[in-house]
Amino acid sequence: MCGVVGISSNESVAADIYDALTMLQHRGQDAAGIMTCHRGQFLQRKGEGLVRDVFQAPHMEQLAGNFGLGHTRYPTQGSSGSALAQPFYVNSPYGIALAHNGNLTNSSALSDELYQTDLRHLNTDSDSEVLLNVFAHELQRQGKLSPEADDVFKAVSALHARCEGGYAAIAMIANVGLVAFRDPNGIRPLVVGVKSQGEHKSYMVASESVALDVLGYRLIGDVDPGEALFIDAAGEFSRQQCASNPKLKPCIFEHVYFARPDSLMDGISVYKTRMRQGERLAHKIMRERPNHDIDVVIPIPDTSRVAGQALAHELGVKFREGFMKNRYIGRTFIMPGQTQRKKSVRQKLNPVPLEFEGKTVLLVDDSIVRGTTCQQIIQMARDSGAKQVYFASAAPPVRFPNVYGIDMPTASELVAHGRTIDEISEHIGADWLIYQEIDDLIECSREGNSLVDGFELSVFDGQYQTGIIDDAYLIGLSDARSDDSVDRADGALVGLHNRS
Amino acid sequence: MCGVVGISSNESVAADIYDALTMLQHRGQDAAGIMTCHRGQFLQRKGEGLVRDVFQAPHMEQLAGNFGLGHTRYPTQGSSGSALAQPFYVNSPYGIALAHNGNLTNSSALSDELYQTDLRHLNTDSDSEVLLNVFAHELQRQGKLSPEADDVFKAVSALHARCEGGYAAIAMIANVGLVAFRDPNGIRPLVVGVKSQGEHKSYMVASESVALDVLGYRLIGDVDPGEALFIDAAGEFSRQQCASNPKLKPCIFEHVYFARPDSLMDGISVYKTRMRQGERLAHKIMRERPNHDIDVVIPIPDTSRVAGQALAHELGVKFREGFMKNRYIGRTFIMPGQTQRKKSVRQKLNPVPLEFEGKTVLLVDDSIVRGTTCQQIIQMARDSGAKQVYFASAAPPVRFPNVYGIDMPTASELVAHGRTIDEISEHIGADWLIYQEIDDLIECSREGNSLVDGFELSVFDGQYQTGIIDDAYLIGLSDARSDDSVDRADGALVGLHNRS
Amino acid sequence: MCGVVGISSNESVAADIYDALTMLQHRGQDAAGIMTCHRGQFLQRKGEGLVRDVFQAPHMEQLAGNFGLGHTRYPTQGSSGSALAQPFYVNSPYGIALAHNGNLTNSSALSDELYQTDLRHLNTDSDSEVLLNVFAHELQRQGKLSPEADDVFKAVSALHARCEGGYAAIAMIANVGLVAFRDPNGIRPLVVGVKSQGEHKSYMVASESVALDVLGYRLIGDVDPGEALFIDAAGEFSRQQCASNPKLKPCIFEHVYFARPDSLMDGISVYKTRMRQGERLAHKIMRERPNHDIDVVIPIPDTSRVAGQALAHELGVKFREGFMKNRYIGRTFIMPGQTQRKKSVRQKLNPVPLEFEGKTVLLVDDSIVRGTTCQQIIQMARDSGAKQVYFASAAPPVRFPNVYGIDMPTASELVAHGRTIDEISEHIGADWLIYQEIDDLIECSREGNSLVDGFELSVFDGQYQTGIIDDAYLIGLSDARSDDSVDRADGALVGLHNRS
Amino acid sequence: MCGVVGISSNESVAADIYDALTMLQHRGQDAAGIMTCHRGQFLQRKGEGLVRDVFQAPHMEQLAGNFGLGHTRYPTQGSSGSALAQPFYVNSPYGIALAHNGNLTNSSALSDELYQTDLRHLNTDSDSEVLLNVFAHELQRQGKLSPEADDVFKAVSALHARCEGGYAAIAMIANVGLVAFRDPNGIRPLVVGVKSQGEHKSYMVASESVALDVLGYRLIGDVDPGEALFIDAAGEFSRQQCASNPKLKPCIFEHVYFARPDSLMDGISVYKTRMRQGERLAHKIMRERPNHDIDVVIPIPDTSRVAGQALAHELGVKFREGFMKNRYIGRTFIMPGQTQRKKSVRQKLNPVPLEFEGKTVLLVDDSIVRGTTCQQIIQMARDSGAKQVYFASAAPPVRFPNVYGIDMPTASELVAHGRTIDEISEHIGADWLIYQEIDDLIECSREGNSLVDGFELSVFDGQYQTGIIDDAYLIGLSDARSDDSVDRADGALVGLHNRS
Repeated sequence: MCGVVGISSNESVAADIYDALTMLQHRGQDAAGIMTCHRGQFLQRKGEGLVRDVFQAPHMEQLAGNFGLGHTRYPTQGSSGSALAQPFYVNSPYGIALAHNGNLTNSSALSDELYQTDLRHLNTDSDSEVLLNVFAHELQRQGKLSPEADDVFKAVSALHARCEGGYAAIAMIANVGLVAFRDPNGIRPLVVGVKSQGEHKSYMVASESVALDVLGYRLIGDVDPGEALFIDAAGEFSRQQCASNPKLKPCIFEHVYFARPDSLMDGISVYKTRMRQGERLAHKIMRERPNHDIDVVIPIPDTSRVAGQALAHELGVKFREGFMKNRYIGRTFIMPGQTQRKKSVRQKLNPVPLEFEGKTVLLVDDSIVRGTTCQQIIQMARDSGAKQVYFASAAPPVRFPNVYGIDMPTASELVAHGRTIDEISEHIGADWLIYQEIDDLIECSREGNSLVDGFELSVFDGQYQTGIIDDAYLIGLSDARSDDSVDRADGALVGLHNRS
Repeated sequence: MCGVVGISSNESVAADIYDALTMLQHRGQDAAGIMTCHRGQFLQRKGEGLVRDVFQAPHMEQLAGNFGLGHTRYPTQGSSGSALAQPFYVNSPYGIALAHNGNLTNSSALSDELYQTDLRHLNTDSDSEVLLNVFAHELQRQGKLSPEADDVFKAVSALHARCEGGYAAIAMIANVGLVAFRDPNGIRPLVVGVKSQGEHKSYMVASESVALDVLGYRLIGDVDPGEALFIDAAGEFSRQQCASNPKLKPCIFEHVYFARPDSLMDGISVYKTRMRQGERLAHKIMRERPNHDIDVVIPIPDTSRVAGQALAHELGVKFREGFMKNRYIGRTFIMPGQTQRKKSVRQKLNPVPLEFEGKTVLLVDDSIVRGTTCQQIIQMARDSGAKQVYFASAAPPVRFPNVYGIDMPTASELVAHGRTIDEISEHIGADWLIYQEIDDLIECSREGNSLVDGFELSVFDGQYQTGIIDDAYLIGLSDARSDDSVDRADGALVGLHNRS
Repeated sequence: MCGVVGISSNESVAADIYDALTMLQHRGQDAAGIMTCHRGQFLQRKGEGLVRDVFQAPHMEQLAGNFGLGHTRYPTQGSSGSALAQPFYVNSPYGIALAHNGNLTNSSALSDELYQTDLRHLNTDSDSEVLLNVFAHELQRQGKLSPEADDVFKAVSALHARCEGGYAAIAMIANVGLVAFRDPNGIRPLVVGVKSQGEHKSYMVASESVALDVLGYRLIGDVDPGEALFIDAAGEFSRQQCASNPKLKPCIFEHVYFARPDSLMDGISVYKTRMRQGERLAHKIMRERPNHDIDVVIPIPDTSRVAGQALAHELGVKFREGFMKNRYIGRTFIMPGQTQRKKSVRQKLNPVPLEFEGKTVLLVDDSIVRGTTCQQIIQMARDSGAKQVYFASAAPPVRFPNVYGIDMPTASELVAHGRTIDEISEHIGADWLIYQEIDDLIECSREGNSLVDGFELSVFDGQYQTGIIDDAYLIGLSDARSDDSVDRADGALVGLHNRS
Repeated sequence: MCGVVGISSNESVAADIYDALTMLQHRGQDAAGIMTCHRGQFLQRKGEGLVRDVFQAPHMEQLAGNFGLGHTRYPTQGSSGSALAQPFYVNSPYGIALAHNGNLTNSSALSDELYQTDLRHLNTDSDSEVLLNVFAHELQRQGKLSPEADDVFKAVSALHARCEGGYAAIAMIANVGLVAFRDPNGIRPLVVGVKSQGEHKSYMVASESVALDVLGYRLIGDVDPGEALFIDAAGEFSRQQCASNPKLKPCIFEHVYFARPDSLMDGISVYKTRMRQGERLAHKIMRERPNHDIDVVIPIPDTSRVAGQALAHELGVKFREGFMKNRYIGRTFIMPGQTQRKKSVRQKLNPVPLEFEGKTVLLVDDSIVRGTTCQQIIQMARDSGAKQVYFASAAPPVRFPNVYGIDMPTASELVAHGRTIDEISEHIGADWLIYQEIDDLIECSREGNSLVDGFELSVFDGQYQTGIIDDAYLIGLSDARSDDSVDRADGALVGLHNRS
């Protein structure tokens, strides 16, 4: 997962892009980049680490220009698509830079095509480089010396016809303008806002509305599935549907875990979906155990706090911060002659015994992936004196990998893969395990916008919205993840575009 | 404020000190240092920044040794005492290193004495350097080639007789052992724990018990006010009261704000004091406005969450996370040609409008210092649609500076200094402002340990426990804070001990 | 001026490229870069500074691949063409990287053409980026999926037809091979060598033969003016003349100053040219002043040492190291409150008074450019007790700017521009000033290879070999040099390709 | 070997110390440090690397103060005495900092004494830390609150009585003044100069006079053996002989190799000693082979150039630069899968074949230590076509280790240790090997100052001037050198004083 932002203004944009990236930092802490365009030339700064570490004053001073892009990268492993810091750049045609959130599921075939038909060399395994080159190629095919909105929209239409997967991308064309587009299923989020500065209107496109809010941009709304936006060098804004059969099927995992709760996506308040998740979960509990003996509801901070509060309120049970989160965890060092050490989960989450002693506690988390952490947390709750430990997941069992940009373990590493609920409960050591129903999860989100065509639910139901996601594809994905040597080679390639 | 840790073990301690520092990181994020002792020689690594940034693998590999110290520094401004990363070192006598949390109120007089009577040069304005040299001088006066527990205790006794203020310090003497001591009023916290490893007992002294818990040390208890501990090179543990008239008057601000809630200090659970603060505040509200119209209680994350939950529960009102905290704030950059920009509080705290629209909200914070942030937060609540905005402080009005190691603005910068509650309420824009009563605050803490002799309450009542804190002293403190040039010169001195 | 190297081998080339760059370091100490090709992907490391500082072990480990390029950059100021570290890269077609020594005199016109006809965006003012894109465009016009030697040669032919100036370039095409070519006048040097490793032949192309010698490559000879070499992925070597009317007119300043004396260029030993320069200068001295009273010949180290020895020997006068060179000069720091300081030439060159006291000394330098340094050196000689100070320049008066890649001041800054010999002598404070005759200089070089068609002598005679070097061009050059703001903006652009 | 400098002025000294260190850089390129004293407080910057790399503008800005010290460290291996960057500091008494060139031969015994009698902890194996603490202790024994010149001189006298070895040291005492002293044999060099600035006289003490010259200080002369200088805070200068039986026996290796030729040491011009070495060597050649067939004399650059010129002139033979030195050598990288590589001497010294082909060449070097490099150089001369290769050493055979601060291999690694001249000649592959006679070498130096009492010649004759240098001591030295693990542990200790 990643965060993207693009701004077209009539004054310098780098500082605003920086601020927007800090608002999108939760979408990726692995690397960050800003690229601006000044008098037809691109300027950039990219690096590994948090936004606040990558950009220092001398870098910001160099980033002149009234339009530009920013990107924060999620620390995916094995997924070759995000091994490089973005934005990416090609010089032909026009000079184009692009930042991307998502994943193409046919990038391998596209890569071959790009070389065969256009002699375009891809220097990485990144699907973002593929996306950029497809866009560049399709724009070049329009053959204009000075492309206009129509040319851009035609290029995006051609791109949609070739690319499969989930993608929300922002590009800029030197001397021409800023372009944003979203895949025909609207899997990955993208919103646009406007700010009037005197006569001039500045536009900002970003992964989440919270970036707009804080910077004083008024949310116009979402980029529609399949739609493209174009803001030309004069600041003229235009938008057009570029897909033949667009559907709105946003990724529901954004609501469960990924997005900030104060964001609005496709008209849906993430905060409210999480509240409803807590309420629905409470109803299920009351259905299943009308006489439950829960003394206190305790969230696993931070994501599950909203759902947990609603759940507790609906159950009429106390809600307490039983785990204290330490935000300053460091690395694990092994000293010479020392026996093997493992960073315990306790360094990150320390229990407050008062809230556990002699009680029946219900722990709440947003979801359960590998199950290893919640196993340790349940044990901590017992060690702190809990009489019984129940565990609730605001999402249904996660059973399948994600191919649209969310970094998930391979199926075999998922605790829910091939296990019944009882088996999972036993595995993690809970006295009772309650999962959200998938229909309930859907309703929690749909209630925010009844016009959606559905949701991207593949991690729960294994149904992929695009292309052919067969066993061979997933095995390839799995191999890439577990093959360390591939990771290293890929890391080496980082060198080309973005490292001196 | 700072965090200190010392470990004496029979195996390498650097990795454990590192982990302990990450547990104490909330006590200071400005600088960090570790010093170990190996075969009579000290090894160190110090630097500015977070623990995870200061220590890399090559540094850790160098930090051999079975006993050592660690320190995290609070980013105080103007207070010259903490301009340097600790631990500090003197080579005469024996080679002694020391890490310190607190502040001496007579360091200027001591500094003159040290030069006049012992020709000891102090290269900084740091009171920690003073403390170390007083200890070194007093130990040298014992005149032993191989000092033993008694000599150490005599030196600490002499130190207590000379030093005024609040201090919790851990020192190590090359080839001799680890020493820990606490000021005779027990103003700053210090606890000790033990871990059995076969026949050997390892000891750990730290600012907060949470560091012990996570590393598997069993809490023995607090270092008493005026007491000193000594663990010799063979691992023998001894302790002795070294003050003539010790009293337990711990700093209550640790309970209000500074300490982690999962810490136990002087037998008092910080978590429980905060719960009680919420309850007492609820009672006051119900006394003052039995028919209050509060719809929802919203904490200012993160510190006030525990008190807020108890308050809401006691009032029988919903408790909601109405503000989302962004943990990734960066610097403010001004681009050339751009108008002045100010980082809005919104980048750090963004409201969830749903929880405010049309409601009467009660915002809760742990305390109010300058009042500028809560002014902005109240405005945000209104902008998000709140009908009425009430504000509750879990602590009484902060009206006086702190001289025992907590970095507070000078009196004139405190919003409560010279203002009535109504005037403060108007200043911050609240529709109603409720402060905790000081007696209630005291009772919240005393309930945890009825044997305390009182609390260090000076920020609330202006009564200082030690020495002569007169106007001249406070004016000096104020001048040091506001004099930028002093800060810079002081920063330069950092060079001597700890920068290559 | 810059140094370039390219190697095609059957084993890893990065370490050899590194070593070659250290042998070419005298051609540019400002920045360095290595790019290798491994399984169709480019890997790179570039940075500012000396080769030994730019490349550390982790970088080298990443630079896998059996063919690759290296570049060292000269610290030109204002000349926007070399503001970026090389090699440069374009991804279309094929993926091509290029390293370049020299300067195009029609790069501005070419840049416009590239955009108009091919929509190619140039992100810098660098003529190397222009050269790369011209080559890329011409190769793309051949339209092959798998280009062969013929296609490459056609592209170079087309490039020669479009580009004006002096250039020696080495390029690599991903999966295809290594290409080297030299401008049709052979202004900038380029040699090729071979090393047999079992059955396999490895080839190395470099700016100077000394790089080949040291790495065990046997010098095959020079790349001819206008010629192109191609070594395909299988290691097959081919070469072809690609210019319609090639002439060999190498830059004579390489012999005077730039090249290492142990290099062989166009069949000419640089060492011998300098010996002959000394001899011819001796003859002129004996012609002009048969009864000269020179007591000792003293070189300005290091370049003039060879010519100085020959001169002294021919004159029958002692040759002495009267100036000691300090190789460790640092920056000039001004401390607060300190009066303005200027780094004196003495920090770099300190006289040995013994060799000056009471003597008539003849100082020898390779050439005189601005005249400021030799003015100070002459004064130092006097201060050290010299009776009379004569000054000899192994080259004729430098009166015109260079447009082929040598960084020279603008005409107005040249001491010989618009001054007679007597005026120059007076200006620099010499008692006698002797310049080499231009015909003598030519003969010194021609004697090494009678087949040359002439030499690039423009700094001496103002005659430019290529294109239209008119006043407008030179004024533009001068403006670029003196306009600091241009420098800075240009520096900022470094960001795009080569800085994370 | 190291370089030291100290300045007392009435304006900021850091920039001058920096410049002086660049003039002394040839004495040590391993590490550098500057410490200044400003209003009674010490400020410092130390680091590994060249002066120009260690000090950047922000460091220099911090180094306020009108007196200070500088140090450049030689990259000794195994010799634990110089593992730390200097100057060193102790805070008791007064605050004293010290920079040192040389080596104490009884530092182990002194170290024990310091702990036993004064409880002074030494945190490193560095004899400089010992020297500083002995000085501190002796000064403390004077017992003054404000020490004056007499107290300082008494302390130096006591120090001379306790310390054995060669040392030239500069110290500063906070608020008190600058001190410089030299061992009673004057083994290591130290000079003093003065510069008048209006009424005020500034003083500079340095290892070599060249640092004074360049900075505009007039050389007063050498610090005498056993003498101490003191410049108090008011700028008053005093000097006194502090040794009971001083002798002037300077290290002759300074003249052979170490010092800059343009330095004046103990009244002796280094340049002239090298000239005379060349002349005496010529006489020996003419004695031994009156009909020698030498065609050309070729120096091994750079040190032997002066002697070589004189030798050639005296012989009446041509002197030629047959080897070109590359000043940009980098590290040796081994690429994965590559066979072992060795940096050939050719990367550093490349022959000019013209000067060798068919000739009988006499190569001249300042001395022969291990013999491995000259073996390779002789082979290069042969490969370049030399008919016969003779080799001359301007110094006699090096047969013994040095214990006074020059880093020499252990005896067994010296090619001349236990070999006859013929055996050495055969070993290095020379057709004829000529060594300087030891008496001639002495005369070359004594001619510069007939008042010397002799020279420190131990590397040639095994006679040590001070203390008991027995087999046990030398074996200890040898063990320290070859024991890598000791090196590493020592390196770790660097941490304490000078690394953050």
